[in-house]
Amino acid sequence: MWSIEDTEFMSRAIKLARRGLYTTRPNPCVGCVITLDDQILGEGFHIQAGGPHAEVHALAMATKRASQAALKGATAYVTLEPCSHYGRTPPCAEALIKHGISRVVVAVEDPNPQVSGRGIKMLRDAGIEVDVGLLSDEAAGINPGFMKRMERGLPWVTVKLASSLDGKTALSNGASKWITGPESRRDVQRLRARNEALVTGIETVLLDDPCLNVRHSELGLLSEQVDADSLHQPLRVVLDSRARLTSTAKLFTVTSPILLVSCIDYPQAEKDTWPQHVSGLILASDNDGRVELTALFAHLGKTYNSVLIEAGATLAGSVISQNHADELILYQAMKILGSNGRNLISLPDYTDMADIPSVELIDERKLGGDTRLTLKIRS
Amino acid sequence: MWSIEDTEFMSRAIKLARRGLYTTRPNPCVGCVITLDDQILGEGFHIQAGGPHAEVHALAMATKRASQAALKGATAYVTLEPCSHYGRTPPCAEALIKHGISRVVVAVEDPNPQVSGRGIKMLRDAGIEVDVGLLSDEAAGINPGFMKRMERGLPWVTVKLASSLDGKTALSNGASKWITGPESRRDVQRLRARNEALVTGIETVLLDDPCLNVRHSELGLLSEQVDADSLHQPLRVVLDSRARLTSTAKLFTVTSPILLVSCIDYPQAEKDTWPQHVSGLILASDNDGRVELTALFAHLGKTYNSVLIEAGATLAGSVISQNHADELILYQAMKILGSNGRNLISLPDYTDMADIPSVELIDERKLGGDTRLTLKIRS
Repeated sequence: MWSIEDTEFMSRAIKLARRGLYTTRPNPCVGCVITLDDQILGEGFHIQAGGPHAEVHALAMATKRASQAALKGATAYVTLEPCSHYGRTPPCAEALIKHGISRVVVAVEDPNPQVSGRGIKMLRDAGIEVDVGLLSDEAAGINPGFMKRMERGLPWVTVKLASSLDGKTALSNGASKWITGPESRRDVQRLRARNEALVTGIETVLLDDPCLNVRHSELGLLSEQVDADSLHQPLRVVLDSRARLTSTAKLFTVTSPILLVSCIDYPQAEKDTWPQHVSGLILASDNDGRVELTALFAHLGKTYNSVLIEAGATLAGSVISQNHADELILYQAMKILGSNGRNLISLPDYTDMADIPSVELIDERKLGGDTRLTLKIRS
Repeated sequence: MWSIEDTEFMSRAIKLARRGLYTTRPNPCVGCVITLDDQILGEGFHIQAGGPHAEVHALAMATKRASQAALKGATAYVTLEPCSHYGRTPPCAEALIKHGISRVVVAVEDPNPQVSGRGIKMLRDAGIEVDVGLLSDEAAGINPGFMKRMERGLPWVTVKLASSLDGKTALSNGASKWITGPESRRDVQRLRARNEALVTGIETVLLDDPCLNVRHSELGLLSEQVDADSLHQPLRVVLDSRARLTSTAKLFTVTSPILLVSCIDYPQAEKDTWPQHVSGLILASDNDGRVELTALFAHLGKTYNSVLIEAGATLAGSVISQNHADELILYQAMKILGSNGRNLISLPDYTDMADIPSVELIDERKLGGDTRLTLKIRS
């Protein structure tokens, strides 16, 4: 069904789409390539919400290179179904029609049930040949959070952990500097930069007093691709069921948004001290008196495509064992700490090996002396 | 100093030497290549103690191919210094001289201080050009146990462990079938086959009642290279400080040698039930009432080049923290068991990250769904 040229050009479009990885949120990453007689005339990708879509960039480049008439017979390769509605920009399907494109190849349909298929229908109604499904897994894989949230109203949840080879995060006295090396710590910065919200627990905040922001200077090579101004900071979410956090936390000194989720209200006197970038949310508690995770992710799914869990063994374990996690990223240091060290992850006391969580290794990289494992979690 | 041909032929000799990995014990693996005008005339490797040395095989092949006179001008590449003494076979240095070899390239000198340099001297005295040291690290690396025992009187000690990603060996109730997959379990059989002695603790024997032998049928591809008869069984050593083992142990049903190491003597009535392949050894106990490991390895070093530790967290941890281990082989399953699971390795309760054992990753392989990590332990 697909020619080798089709595959080549869609691969190129996917590669272009990925360039928006750190900047398009809350929009998905999209790439577009326009060809005539199997030569690339124009290409582009979506850079930033509110800015032009990928198709608009590609069409602009193509029309510069060819006369309007010359786009007759041209093919557009798009990683996501072109939009059909007036949002912050006019519909891309309309633009493709207006420019006289003859064929559109779409990798994946828009997952939003309110939109899905309408862009394709608009193109077909205008007499354009539309082929759907080329490299669809790869294209969907660029935007797992967007796809999941549109389909199920829930964010893509990544649990990040770091440990020694024997699964310890610190010595018994809490000493842990440094288990992983500088390359891993820089990679965590990139991971934060890719996620729209970051969830941690009150224990981690009280113990480590972290800022949990993305530090542009620590992004490594990425800092050359994304300047400090267009770098999004993830929403920082602290689960603090008993409303213990006070505004002396270092977290408050960084001005990107903070959401404090508790099961009881904070004292008014305390709330009065909150700076403008801090807000509170009260959710139900679970049987252990902790913030109910189903309610949490339903809330975050209203706004955020992707959530990173950077927490201790208890919260990280609950997110996994309660089937909220899609992915586990484990930074593993080539060290052994011994059984007195602190455990990586708390899970229920399983009695049967058949009951343990089902994980599958999908990527493995070396980061300096450490290994980064990416595992898909099946629920 | 070395030509590219020298390096090529020594590499070949090292590759040949490795073919003896499972059969030469207690002798080292040795390979030999004989060339004339940079063409290989003969090659061979040491197969089995008591059988011909590598040089003898290579000379036999070379003389078949060329007249005796034709070996004038020939070069012999040997991975280990040729022997100079009459053992079970005549000295190889003498054979090389008698065949008119003109130059001998040696990778490493014999590490035995009683032998070292004598073979080389014998060759030089006969007017042969001898060059020493080409690919010496690689050649020594084939026989780490032989090298270490000759130099220090101690065996090469490998600790084998298997765990989940979070460093657990079983669920809290002991369930662990199967954390690692069949490929890893077959690899453990090969690891046992490469080691001359295998040490375990009484707890493991009482709990799992294992046989701890090498099962030819489970060796995988190796079973095609080594037939069941030439397969060595490692000495099975059980550390049983309080002399608790009884002859109902499944271990006794396999007739390869067993050494029971205790700190007190077994009751005579018990010893009377021991089959012929079982013997006892009494060693001093340490402060915890366990078999003193320094005494154990000194004893094993009298006879065995290589020792594999297949034990629980306590014994494996003691071997490492008391600086007896050279290497750690960790089979890591892509699973998470949670903090209730059993710990991989017991180490002292360190208070400073600077005190943890120093390990270095030297090899990593996929075995089915598992990863095998080989780490060098620095003491």
